[in-house]
Amino acid sequence: MTKTFVLAPDSFKESMTAKEVCIAMERGIKKVFPNGKFIHVPMADGGEGTVQSLVDATDGTLYSAHVTGPLGNAVKATYGIMGDKETAVIEMAEASGIHLVDKNNKNPLIATTYGTGELIIECLNKKAKRIIIGIGGSATNDGGTGMAEALGVKFLDQYGNCLPRGGGSLNLLDKIDCSHIDKRLADVELLVACDVTNPLCGENGASYVFGPQKGATKEMVRKLDQNLAHYASVVKEHLKIDIKDYPGAGAAGGLGAGLLIFTKAVLKKGVDLVIEYSHLKEKIKGADFVFTGEGGIDFQTQYGKTPYGVAKAAKEQHVKVIAIAGYVGEGIDVLYTQGIDAIFGIIPQAGSLENLLKEGTKNVERTCENIARLL
Amino acid sequence: MTKTFVLAPDSFKESMTAKEVCIAMERGIKKVFPNGKFIHVPMADGGEGTVQSLVDATDGTLYSAHVTGPLGNAVKATYGIMGDKETAVIEMAEASGIHLVDKNNKNPLIATTYGTGELIIECLNKKAKRIIIGIGGSATNDGGTGMAEALGVKFLDQYGNCLPRGGGSLNLLDKIDCSHIDKRLADVELLVACDVTNPLCGENGASYVFGPQKGATKEMVRKLDQNLAHYASVVKEHLKIDIKDYPGAGAAGGLGAGLLIFTKAVLKKGVDLVIEYSHLKEKIKGADFVFTGEGGIDFQTQYGKTPYGVAKAAKEQHVKVIAIAGYVGEGIDVLYTQGIDAIFGIIPQAGSLENLLKEGTKNVERTCENIARLL
Repeated sequence: MTKTFVLAPDSFKESMTAKEVCIAMERGIKKVFPNGKFIHVPMADGGEGTVQSLVDATDGTLYSAHVTGPLGNAVKATYGIMGDKETAVIEMAEASGIHLVDKNNKNPLIATTYGTGELIIECLNKKAKRIIIGIGGSATNDGGTGMAEALGVKFLDQYGNCLPRGGGSLNLLDKIDCSHIDKRLADVELLVACDVTNPLCGENGASYVFGPQKGATKEMVRKLDQNLAHYASVVKEHLKIDIKDYPGAGAAGGLGAGLLIFTKAVLKKGVDLVIEYSHLKEKIKGADFVFTGEGGIDFQTQYGKTPYGVAKAAKEQHVKVIAIAGYVGEGIDVLYTQGIDAIFGIIPQAGSLENLLKEGTKNVERTCENIARLL
Repeated sequence: MTKTFVLAPDSFKESMTAKEVCIAMERGIKKVFPNGKFIHVPMADGGEGTVQSLVDATDGTLYSAHVTGPLGNAVKATYGIMGDKETAVIEMAEASGIHLVDKNNKNPLIATTYGTGELIIECLNKKAKRIIIGIGGSATNDGGTGMAEALGVKFLDQYGNCLPRGGGSLNLLDKIDCSHIDKRLADVELLVACDVTNPLCGENGASYVFGPQKGATKEMVRKLDQNLAHYASVVKEHLKIDIKDYPGAGAAGGLGAGLLIFTKAVLKKGVDLVIEYSHLKEKIKGADFVFTGEGGIDFQTQYGKTPYGVAKAAKEQHVKVIAIAGYVGEGIDVLYTQGIDAIFGIIPQAGSLENLLKEGTKNVERTCENIARLL
């Protein structure tokens, strides 16, 4: 009897895109099930690879645009229009990511999300009806004000002058002028893939939790947090929106807040968004096995990583779920109770990460072949 | 229904004994099959770990003795008496192994198997009716003359003087006096675990193939080879035994030849001997799964390594065989056709061999648990 395999891995960071993992998985399993039916659903969780996976999963199109980088320099950012031609997908890190900043130049006082706003404009120009936006990996702490500025919002000081970009100037914010915001935004939904937990301010907020990894000293963290609190109070006063304690508003240096304030945004767990827009659940219908995986799997996988999300979706339909990973860490036992039936490492021998990353597809193929030999 | 698992791995060199692997395998599988029946059969292939595994597999006893090392110094050698109390098991490397010689002092001209002969005497003293002797990893190239000397044989030059020990003096051999050989040997079978291929002399012989790794220069190799040929001709002339082209006579620097000449020896593939004396086939009867494994598995596994031997034995009874390894190398596809149903690496992440060796049992346990979750 023909078996149906749904292949729904995340990318293996620095080694393979999710699509490449799918292809290697199929090659391995096919050696054992030459007549098997294989459905590729490249996955992601809102982080790096989300654009690529959703474009791959829906036969969409990749585009790129030159936008303003976190420190004002121009950067080339990739984004996508999905196969339905009306859903755009962007990653804020492509325009405003920490990886775009040289280690010695990190500065969350001046880093801006302006380029992310420009990417949103690009999507509007392509007539997107909704925009999925992954907001992990930011270099910024500006509450999304840069993004909003690109959309037409003006952030003014008491003299009516526009503020310099970056979270470091928000203490001077006196007035927000939304009269010139891009009108097209009224009809476009922004689906924000993020950790829906951190509030904007305070010790669990954007500045205290994520500031240090963006280059903030203790003194800077305190200033950035105070500035975001001031920003929230100005927003509350002028726009009648109370964003300060909203869960997820602190994501990506407060870009979560900015999107909630200035656009029709809904915050969701990244993997749930990708599952929905890749139509994973429909594709699992009638399947015999789901293969998933990610570069690393450990106890943190349960907090919304791709293998966890895929397993949850598959278990609604009682389909067996097998996961593979380059790194199998501590605490994976908990995943067995959450729908992952078995987890295998793909590494064939001791050695440097560098070499292993190069041999990813070979190792995925061999591991999946051997798993298939037990099915 | 209760499932029966036969656990028959080799040791994982520098990490775990075969018995330790068995225990870790059971711990992992038991999480999935808490009522499973587990039969431990620690395995070996005649190389390092053979004594330990056969003692462990039969509830035998380990002993140790101080014997003459390869360069004349005293060494402490471990050997075993199996659970039947009449089968002894020794490894020549314990007395005459290359690992006992400092890298800079390797010298196959003078290295002797004398200590291996002393170990045989130890076994005779313990009233062994048969002796299994693994003869891999030697430092010697003496044709087993040292071993024979310990058993009472005299190797004399033309003046009737005993030769100095070591293969470098065999050119002076004129006469072999067996009149004082230990009489007990007449009733004792020596089961020699070795590669049953290399002849004593010539380009596939002991000196040319294995001499260099024992420290022989090109000049020394030529001399050692000529000396072994001279030894064979003296043996033929005086003892009427033609050993020169006997397959396996070249094993362990010609110790294979020495054992064939002076004892009731039978050469066998190591893994076959271990399978026989651990009663593996009987233990597999009625089992549902056989788990095997070794530190490394690759295309060479088919040339008589433990997982290959175990798989062959299990397939006679159509039992499913699953193998695990720390190192999964090239060319394993051929093993699928030889009875190994699936092969899994146990390494959870990139990293140094040193660290991985320390975490062996944990990785065996996790891997076997996940395999069991698919069964």
